[in-house]
Amino acid sequence: MKITGIGLYLPPKIQSAEELSEKIKKSSEWIVSKTGVKERRISEIDVDQMGAIAAKDALDGRKPDLILNASGVARQVIPDTSVYFQRELDLEGVPAFSIHATCLSFLVALKTANEFLENNNFNKILIISADRGTIGRNFNEPESAALLGDGAAAVLVEKNDKTDDSCLEYWKMKTFSSGADLTVVRGGGTKLHPQNPLTRLSDNLFSMNGPQIYRLARKKIYKMLIEMLKNQNIKVSDIDLVIPHQASITAIEAYIKYGRFNPQQIVNVISKTGNCVAASLPMSLAMAYKDNRISRGDRLYFTGTGAGLSIISALIKF
Amino acid sequence: MKITGIGLYLPPKIQSAEELSEKIKKSSEWIVSKTGVKERRISEIDVDQMGAIAAKDALDGRKPDLILNASGVARQVIPDTSVYFQRELDLEGVPAFSIHATCLSFLVALKTANEFLENNNFNKILIISADRGTIGRNFNEPESAALLGDGAAAVLVEKNDKTDDSCLEYWKMKTFSSGADLTVVRGGGTKLHPQNPLTRLSDNLFSMNGPQIYRLARKKIYKMLIEMLKNQNIKVSDIDLVIPHQASITAIEAYIKYGRFNPQQIVNVISKTGNCVAASLPMSLAMAYKDNRISRGDRLYFTGTGAGLSIISALIKF
Repeated sequence: MKITGIGLYLPPKIQSAEELSEKIKKSSEWIVSKTGVKERRISEIDVDQMGAIAAKDALDGRKPDLILNASGVARQVIPDTSVYFQRELDLEGVPAFSIHATCLSFLVALKTANEFLENNNFNKILIISADRGTIGRNFNEPESAALLGDGAAAVLVEKNDKTDDSCLEYWKMKTFSSGADLTVVRGGGTKLHPQNPLTRLSDNLFSMNGPQIYRLARKKIYKMLIEMLKNQNIKVSDIDLVIPHQASITAIEAYIKYGRFNPQQIVNVISKTGNCVAASLPMSLAMAYKDNRISRGDRLYFTGTGAGLSIISALIKF
Repeated sequence: MKITGIGLYLPPKIQSAEELSEKIKKSSEWIVSKTGVKERRISEIDVDQMGAIAAKDALDGRKPDLILNASGVARQVIPDTSVYFQRELDLEGVPAFSIHATCLSFLVALKTANEFLENNNFNKILIISADRGTIGRNFNEPESAALLGDGAAAVLVEKNDKTDDSCLEYWKMKTFSSGADLTVVRGGGTKLHPQNPLTRLSDNLFSMNGPQIYRLARKKIYKMLIEMLKNQNIKVSDIDLVIPHQASITAIEAYIKYGRFNPQQIVNVISKTGNCVAASLPMSLAMAYKDNRISRGDRLYFTGTGAGLSIISALIKF
């Protein structure tokens, strides 16, 4: 597998900590110190259009033969968002489906694409993550409301033609449903259907217990990092860039504190984007790439947690 | 790939055409002649519990190393339903994610499982489809309201140990987003968020334009059948059992009328289950299996349409 195209969509409208401050009744200093998010983007177009802009950037005129939606929250209950990406991209006939593992959807889609390519099912797989988390902010829950931002990114992956050694070197996922209720949008499905008289407005908004996730996840993430290093027989210093899910500044800084990476090894864009749900991982990749921080042959380590609670530890030779 | 376990959950509560009749202001004769659904099940437990019952039936004491949710409508927006299946099955740590292609989710998950097994990523993959479509019925749209039913099914798939020739022989998917708006639940996502003042109650209910889907899909399905027969160098009579998505009686009967299958070759359970969204395909497999209509080595042809509009044509050597 080889990543042959990377695209990004950063909505132009910026909401600063100052602007958010009055909505959540916290000072901008509180917002920045608690979450690390100085500003976030607010999209005025919907996820299908956001994703299509990022996809066109990644495709650069090429045509995929499979479209994978790897977003956190859908455009609507059915059909799945991949179909609307296809419509925006004018790719009638190309198979399209969605992969959902909340914030880790991109890494699951990347692994799935790798398996499909490996077995010669497809030649060019387009993965798109587009999230508009600001729509579901609960202003009565200031910390999670201050974290969320909007954005989209896309990658094109192809089978490696063997002219170099680009590949997915390692991929491991674990899910711990003991943490299932720590990151939720409880509504929108069968449990608290909009018709259900028990459904409250807040059930349709994002809710996250950051400190408890951190406690549950920290050691597990570290263990999965060590497992990967052992399995690949490499050291922390052999990794060129760590691309973590931009969950919160505390989560990102833990890679320095506990993972023993140096700050320069870590992509940290949360101050400018916030937590963009499933789009955060490919957006971090795209922003680092566009900043010329990634070269062919680099070792990229992807890691993070998603609602579930799930953890993925993945190594890519770019 | 080899299917080594099949499980089913049929909710005990039955709603007959007579009982539904007054809700949708149509006679039971109208319901049966229009949709073919004499009765449907109404689940009193949620999708996570429904799926877990089917999964336990499929697992029969074995432990999977990957859980795939392949349902049409989720329990809630996040986390994805796979996590709740894991919790119900007490499988903490086992990776879990969702695949979404509306009514075709099961066939996409089966293909994905095949690719993962092929490359030795996992040994035992559990696929679960659980849908509770009756919650989202729009009684002002009598035809689609009369179609929907509840149910769940699960399969366990493993890498074939080569003692027989069980495999996924053929799999092809196409998506036509020109039909994206023919089967919808418009709400529940970013487009018509519950907080959006434009969102009406009916946006959160199921809506389907059966006749237009039929017009768009019929020739395309037939073409994909012919393509499969040619590719596999087999005849219609070489197929032991056709397992179609139970979309409507018109759709199922089209396989006899246009596909030239004989009625005995086709699994037709719609009169007893209705259209159970993504659960229909594995439920049809499970019901045929439990009726002793499937033996090792049989050629099973899976086909159908899903919202999107997507079509899959897949052949399995059981």
